[in-house]
Amino acid sequence: MAGEQGGYPQLPIESPIYPPTLTPEQQEHLISTLTDYALAHGLIVRPTSSLVEHNPNNALATVAPVTLWPSTFPREPFLEALAIQQTCNELYARIAADELFLESLMLELSKVDQFMKRLWDIHLYVKAKGYKQNMSLGLFRSDYMINQPEGKIPKIQQVEFNTISSSFGALSTRVAEMHRFLWKIEAYPDTPVLDRASLPPNNAIDELATGLASAHKAYSAQGTHPDADDLAVLFVVQEGERNVFDQRWLEYSLIEHHDIRTYRLTLSEIPAAITIKEDGTLFCRPAHLPEDTLIEISTIYYRAGYGPDDYTNEEHWNTRANLEASRAIKCPTVLTQLAGAKKVQQVLANPTYLSKFLPDKKAHERIFNTFTSIFPLDTSPEGLKARSLALEHPEKYVLKPQREGGGNNIYRYKIPGFLKSLPESNWSKYILMEIIEPPSIENTVVRNGELIRGPVVGELGVYGTILWEKRDDGDVAIRENKQAGWLLRTKGTESEEGGVAAGFGCVDSVVLVD
Amino acid sequence: MAGEQGGYPQLPIESPIYPPTLTPEQQEHLISTLTDYALAHGLIVRPTSSLVEHNPNNALATVAPVTLWPSTFPREPFLEALAIQQTCNELYARIAADELFLESLMLELSKVDQFMKRLWDIHLYVKAKGYKQNMSLGLFRSDYMINQPEGKIPKIQQVEFNTISSSFGALSTRVAEMHRFLWKIEAYPDTPVLDRASLPPNNAIDELATGLASAHKAYSAQGTHPDADDLAVLFVVQEGERNVFDQRWLEYSLIEHHDIRTYRLTLSEIPAAITIKEDGTLFCRPAHLPEDTLIEISTIYYRAGYGPDDYTNEEHWNTRANLEASRAIKCPTVLTQLAGAKKVQQVLANPTYLSKFLPDKKAHERIFNTFTSIFPLDTSPEGLKARSLALEHPEKYVLKPQREGGGNNIYRYKIPGFLKSLPESNWSKYILMEIIEPPSIENTVVRNGELIRGPVVGELGVYGTILWEKRDDGDVAIRENKQAGWLLRTKGTESEEGGVAAGFGCVDSVVLVD
Repeated sequence: MAGEQGGYPQLPIESPIYPPTLTPEQQEHLISTLTDYALAHGLIVRPTSSLVEHNPNNALATVAPVTLWPSTFPREPFLEALAIQQTCNELYARIAADELFLESLMLELSKVDQFMKRLWDIHLYVKAKGYKQNMSLGLFRSDYMINQPEGKIPKIQQVEFNTISSSFGALSTRVAEMHRFLWKIEAYPDTPVLDRASLPPNNAIDELATGLASAHKAYSAQGTHPDADDLAVLFVVQEGERNVFDQRWLEYSLIEHHDIRTYRLTLSEIPAAITIKEDGTLFCRPAHLPEDTLIEISTIYYRAGYGPDDYTNEEHWNTRANLEASRAIKCPTVLTQLAGAKKVQQVLANPTYLSKFLPDKKAHERIFNTFTSIFPLDTSPEGLKARSLALEHPEKYVLKPQREGGGNNIYRYKIPGFLKSLPESNWSKYILMEIIEPPSIENTVVRNGELIRGPVVGELGVYGTILWEKRDDGDVAIRENKQAGWLLRTKGTESEEGGVAAGFGCVDSVVLVD
Repeated sequence: MAGEQGGYPQLPIESPIYPPTLTPEQQEHLISTLTDYALAHGLIVRPTSSLVEHNPNNALATVAPVTLWPSTFPREPFLEALAIQQTCNELYARIAADELFLESLMLELSKVDQFMKRLWDIHLYVKAKGYKQNMSLGLFRSDYMINQPEGKIPKIQQVEFNTISSSFGALSTRVAEMHRFLWKIEAYPDTPVLDRASLPPNNAIDELATGLASAHKAYSAQGTHPDADDLAVLFVVQEGERNVFDQRWLEYSLIEHHDIRTYRLTLSEIPAAITIKEDGTLFCRPAHLPEDTLIEISTIYYRAGYGPDDYTNEEHWNTRANLEASRAIKCPTVLTQLAGAKKVQQVLANPTYLSKFLPDKKAHERIFNTFTSIFPLDTSPEGLKARSLALEHPEKYVLKPQREGGGNNIYRYKIPGFLKSLPESNWSKYILMEIIEPPSIENTVVRNGELIRGPVVGELGVYGTILWEKRDDGDVAIRENKQAGWLLRTKGTESEEGGVAAGFGCVDSVVLVD
């Protein structure tokens, strides 16, 4: 149709080249501006021993692994992921409250996964003693990738749903602010891709802190001990956490905006620091406070305990059980943690189950649209069929352990060899998931001061906070339910793992494209 | 009089022990809380090579040297120092505007101080060409110590007045916030010394940035080039500055609160980046921007060029002269820099001179009250008398170079030996100053993750911003004049030097005591 409009040939619409190529001067300016901004604004982690051998009293910090540019992300799927987060929150709250449903899954899971079994045992122990708290808090994160097989419309596909220790909320707020700052001061060369409307805000820090505050206030409204010196939130943390600043920002937001104190203790430190009263009230006396101090704990926020590596002795399991039995509101309860099992995700991929928790047809449809095919690898007819797929067409699948926490995923052609290396009785510890085909885009990763440019893929996480009450009739009363910001984790396409904490990938933000 | 009140003996009033002694658990909690807060909030510096040998792209930062506690400081003298800052600002603006006065001092000074002479020569060069800008900006800092000889009432005594590169404004804001935070979350054990009213706020970051913004806006109101792409502030900085974050916070405040861009260039980088038009308009094209970019510079803010070490070749002097000749508002002009010479401070100690600049009797009295005895070491009758004092009673004096920038002070019994090592013709490069006797207090310094407890002394700095116009009739019209926050620099009493940048001392905040 060339020449139709007044004789001028119509040029094909070209997508702008993004990110633009940098001159050496532009790159030098950009990296120094980015680095100072990140260091000044707490977009940091503790350095690895590859960077410094000696770090007295942890006095050194380094820029968290970040991307030089925000990564392009299609606008509609991004908005859809944010829009359905409250429905996702409610779905998982209802699952966590459904003991019978979880029990049915645990019958099989507990045979093959010792970690799951021990969590379930804690539930049974507390149930036998009598639960002292009917409120639960969830700080969730639903992770998606863009699935866009050639020529298709991009679509979000859920990768996993995290119900415990959903991390990187604070760093993701800071990285979005940093990318916006770099754009605002023109540290980026001019490109039509970046403008104010294409860089969405991300207030995950304050939203997540507000979630914790809502539990704290709900607990307080239940009536506290008159002899307590203070009411506070307990952060259960890992020893030597490198990603500590991601947690600290939540603490700073809690004290600044809600006047709520926090205390940080590891599973090893807790026994000496806590006392649980007959009625389940949990008191804490961190070692730096006077001996007769009684801090009442309103809310227990787990940034540890999500995987078996955090429980290195029986005392750690006892500690988890004692905390679970207390009257403090847990974020999450063991049942909520179990609701995040891959097995649950796999079962929900069956529309019948999903309808049970999401009777609303429209909500059901939107959530179901984000699901990818997931199969069990057990001895059910469906599982046996999936075993053949895994061995004969591994190129379309990823093998994932049932439990949460990332890591240890087996991709494509590595699946048959891996499965054969295990006794068949252990196969049902895994689920088989169709691989998502994300568009590969360009970006530069900045890690330990080094720049690596190349093709990358991003994984979008959407945070949600939900506070609910399990009524005596078994129903769920939702007290607060919010979408709470987002995260883009980006990794090189050569690596097939995604956890930033594990040392792969980095924190990114989105630039929305149509 | 014991026993008068109902038979109970009256106990003597004891001053509370401050800072309180810490248990090992308290100290461990305090140092880890302080460290993470400082790192997260940009209370940082680039690490020294003693901490890390390799720092690729400056990706590492460490906590700035700080005190564990805010240091006690008497309330009345603190408030007095803040209250007189606007008068100090005005005093130094009037001195900087008084060419005849400065010329009379330079006649002698330029004979003995090559650095001063070269600055004065720049003034003469620009004067001959014709000054293109009649506005000047001062970001000043007046430094005081408490003088409290045994049994006397504490009193502030001015140590020096900084008219160029007054640093640590940003870090002092952050350290005051940090000490307040540590108090608020009870990381400090209970002590009656600390309460909300005893920890004054300190908004030096935003006040100093607002000072820069006032010059920028005044320049803009003078009318800018229609062909400029942008109007911005130029920071003249040192290569490899470790205290860079102290400067970055001013840049972040300028862009966030005033939407004003900043560019950082060293004296070496400037020639290739700037163009000065016939009318004196200064344009800048930093290397990361496209070649045809025209950024018009409204304000030049010097964080370099304050001492001779910054001018390592003739090109640096040419650059300073070219910038001075431009139409941009300088912070400071060479005349303002010269007004900060110790020689000026010494001459002002003569009430006749002070009256010339401060005719108001009350203002005169308050300022004069802060002066300590200062003598020239030249061949005037007063100078000759001071030479005898220096050689015969050195224990009461400190010997200081005329020029600004700290360092190289000679204390007490080291004075005679030092003077004798110099040709007498060089003695007039120095002034002799009565030593101030500050109260020694206890504190703990945190440096590179190590804690050092011991007796310390503090030096209070009060920031001021002033924008003035030199009228054709020689008078000064003051456009803005503000007190702009404060700094407490603390050093161990064993060291007799005070500059934090030089590696001695650290950033502190005050806890006011009555």
